[in-house]
Amino acid sequence: MPEEVNIKKMTTQPKTYAEAGVDVEKADRFVHRLKALASRPEHARLWKVPSGYAAIYPTSDDSAVACTTDGVGTKLLVAMALDTFDTIGIDLVAMCANDLICVGAMPGAFLDYFATGRVEDLKADQIIKGIVEGCDQAGMVLAGGETAEMPDLYPGEHFDLAGFAIGTVTRKTLIDGLNVKSGDAIVGVASSGIHSNGLSLARKVIAFDDPSYKELLTPTRIYCRPAAEIFATHPGAIKGMAHITGGGWTNIGRISKAFGYQIDKPLPALPIFSRLLSHIESVSEMYHTFNMGMGLTLVCDQVDVDNILQTFARQGFEAAQVGSVVDNFKGIKITDRVLGSTAPLDIAFSNKT
Amino acid sequence: MPEEVNIKKMTTQPKTYAEAGVDVEKADRFVHRLKALASRPEHARLWKVPSGYAAIYPTSDDSAVACTTDGVGTKLLVAMALDTFDTIGIDLVAMCANDLICVGAMPGAFLDYFATGRVEDLKADQIIKGIVEGCDQAGMVLAGGETAEMPDLYPGEHFDLAGFAIGTVTRKTLIDGLNVKSGDAIVGVASSGIHSNGLSLARKVIAFDDPSYKELLTPTRIYCRPAAEIFATHPGAIKGMAHITGGGWTNIGRISKAFGYQIDKPLPALPIFSRLLSHIESVSEMYHTFNMGMGLTLVCDQVDVDNILQTFARQGFEAAQVGSVVDNFKGIKITDRVLGSTAPLDIAFSNKT
Repeated sequence: MPEEVNIKKMTTQPKTYAEAGVDVEKADRFVHRLKALASRPEHARLWKVPSGYAAIYPTSDDSAVACTTDGVGTKLLVAMALDTFDTIGIDLVAMCANDLICVGAMPGAFLDYFATGRVEDLKADQIIKGIVEGCDQAGMVLAGGETAEMPDLYPGEHFDLAGFAIGTVTRKTLIDGLNVKSGDAIVGVASSGIHSNGLSLARKVIAFDDPSYKELLTPTRIYCRPAAEIFATHPGAIKGMAHITGGGWTNIGRISKAFGYQIDKPLPALPIFSRLLSHIESVSEMYHTFNMGMGLTLVCDQVDVDNILQTFARQGFEAAQVGSVVDNFKGIKITDRVLGSTAPLDIAFSNKT
Repeated sequence: MPEEVNIKKMTTQPKTYAEAGVDVEKADRFVHRLKALASRPEHARLWKVPSGYAAIYPTSDDSAVACTTDGVGTKLLVAMALDTFDTIGIDLVAMCANDLICVGAMPGAFLDYFATGRVEDLKADQIIKGIVEGCDQAGMVLAGGETAEMPDLYPGEHFDLAGFAIGTVTRKTLIDGLNVKSGDAIVGVASSGIHSNGLSLARKVIAFDDPSYKELLTPTRIYCRPAAEIFATHPGAIKGMAHITGGGWTNIGRISKAFGYQIDKPLPALPIFSRLLSHIESVSEMYHTFNMGMGLTLVCDQVDVDNILQTFARQGFEAAQVGSVVDNFKGIKITDRVLGSTAPLDIAFSNKT
C-alpha cells in the first residue's frame, strides 16, 4: 500500500485546516478564475441567488430547476479506515440535498457518480444502500448514476463519490435573502456531529485508536423534510438559509451580506467539538472549519419562530433561536458558549458568494 | 510514484476489455442490484425511456428535465501521460451532453465535480477551459460545480472529473423509440476517434512512444447543435438515438429492442481502429468496445434522411445512412467494411436497458 493511501497513519499533527493540507484561499482564487472563464451571456437566464448554494435554471417564467453537486471529501477515508460503508451515502445525499433547500427548492431527484479501482460487491452494495437511505430521508428518488471501474486510476478498492441533485423551485418559494431585515430571528438546527466538512483536519488530530474516531463517521443530518413542510405550509417564512459546510460558520454570511449576525445563544455543545478543540490552534479556527453543533441556520421574522421551531421539533430535529439579525455591523459575532468560553468572537464574511 | 499511478508503464498486453481489468458483466450485475435497492414507488413519476440515456424528472404534465451524469474514464490517464489538459473537459461535457440528446432533450446547464490531491493552477485552468469549450459546443452554460482538494485521497496532482448535465424535454420532443418501425433508416454520424470509451484497453495496447498514442486524446465530438436544430425544425423526425459509448455498437440496441439493425454501409474507417485491431483479440471485441468511427446513431423515416444528413453536414458533421431497421431478427448485424473485412458479424443486444 503506497504511503498516500495509508489512511490510518498520522505524521505530524496539524493544528489548522491549512496545515492539514487544504489551502482554502488558493481554492477560492481558482473558483474566482473559473467563474471568469465560464462567464457567458446565457448566465443571465439563470435565477440569481447570492448564497450560491445551487444553480437555478428556469423552465418557465415562474418555475425553475435548482441543481447542485458535491462530494463527501475525506470522510471517505474515515469510512475506509473503519471499514464501514453503509452511511457514507447518507452524507453524499445530505451534502447536495441540504444545499438545495437553502435556495427554497423541493428536492426531487439524485444521481451518483461512483468511481473505484474495483467494484467489490459487498462494499458497493453498502454504499448504495446509504445513498438510497439518504434519498429516502431527503424525499428524493435515486434516478440514475454512473459507476466507473478504473483500476489504474484508483488503487485497489479505493473510491470516490460525487452526487448531483435537482429540485423544483418557483418565484414564490425562492429563497434569495432579499427580505432579510434587522431584528429578524436567527434559528439554528442541530447537527449530528462533524457532518462532512473539516475531516482533512479532524482525522489527523483524532487518532484511529481514539474512541472518538468512530464519531467522525456519524452521518450528516438531512434537513429537507422539515424545510419542505415549512415551504409548503408557510411559503416565504424562511427568508434566508445556510447549510453549514466547508468554511464553518462563515457560511452564515451567505444568507445576506447586508447585515450582521449576532449569535449569543448557541445550541448545546456536542462533545466531539470539545475533543477537537484540545488539538486545534484557536477557537476561531474551530468556527472557521466546523459546524460547531449547528448544521443549518435560517433567518425568519420573529413572529414565525415558534411555528418553525415546532415543525423541526415535530420531525425530530433540535432547533432554537440562537440570535438576531442586526444592522450596526456586517459580519458574524459569536458569544462562544459552545466551547465553554464566553469570549466574543468576530468572523468576517467569507468571500464565497 | 507508486506502481498504480505509473500511467506510462505497460506490463503484459491485454487483448480484450476484460483482460484490461474491466469486468463489464460484473458491473452490469451491480447496476441490476442497485436498481432493485433504489426502487421506490416515486420512480413511477419519472418519464420512461427504454434507452436509459438520462433520467427524466417531470416539472409539469407536458414538460420535464432530463439529467445525466458521467465521467471520462481512464482517458484522464492519457491526458496525464501526455501532460495535456485543455481538451479532457470537452470529453467530460460530451459524455453527458450526447446522452441528453438521445432522449430528445435540449442541453441546458452543466455542473462539474473536480477532485484532486492538489489544485495546480495552470492545470486546473486548462481543465476548466476545456469544460467551458465543451459547454459552448453543446449550447450549455457551466452553471456550477465542486472543486474538492483531497491531498490524502488523490496522490499529488492526480485527479478525477465527473459531469452532470440537465436539459429540457417535452412530451412532443421526447425520444422513446416507440415510433421506430421496420424499414426505417439508420443514420450514423462520424466520431472524431476513440472518444471516451475503451481507453482502459486502448492505452494498454498502444504504447506511450507509439505515434498513435496522442490520437487517443482527440476530444469527443459533441453532437448537440445539429440534434437541437433537428428537434426544433422537425420535432419527432428522430425516432431513436444512441450515443455510442461503453459497450460499443451494442448501444444501438438501446434505440429499441423490438427490431434488428442491419448495418452494411458503415462510415469511412478511422486509422486508429485499424491500429487497435492489430492488438485486439477479434473484430467482435472491437465492435463491443469501441465506437468504430460512429459516435452517434439515429433512426428516422426514410423520407427524413436527406434533411437530417443536410443538417449534420451544414454544421460540419460527417453523416450517412449506414443501414436499415428490419423485423426478421432482433439484434445488430454488421457487414464489416470498417476494418477491411466483409465477414458478417452478429451482435446480441446489450443487457443495458
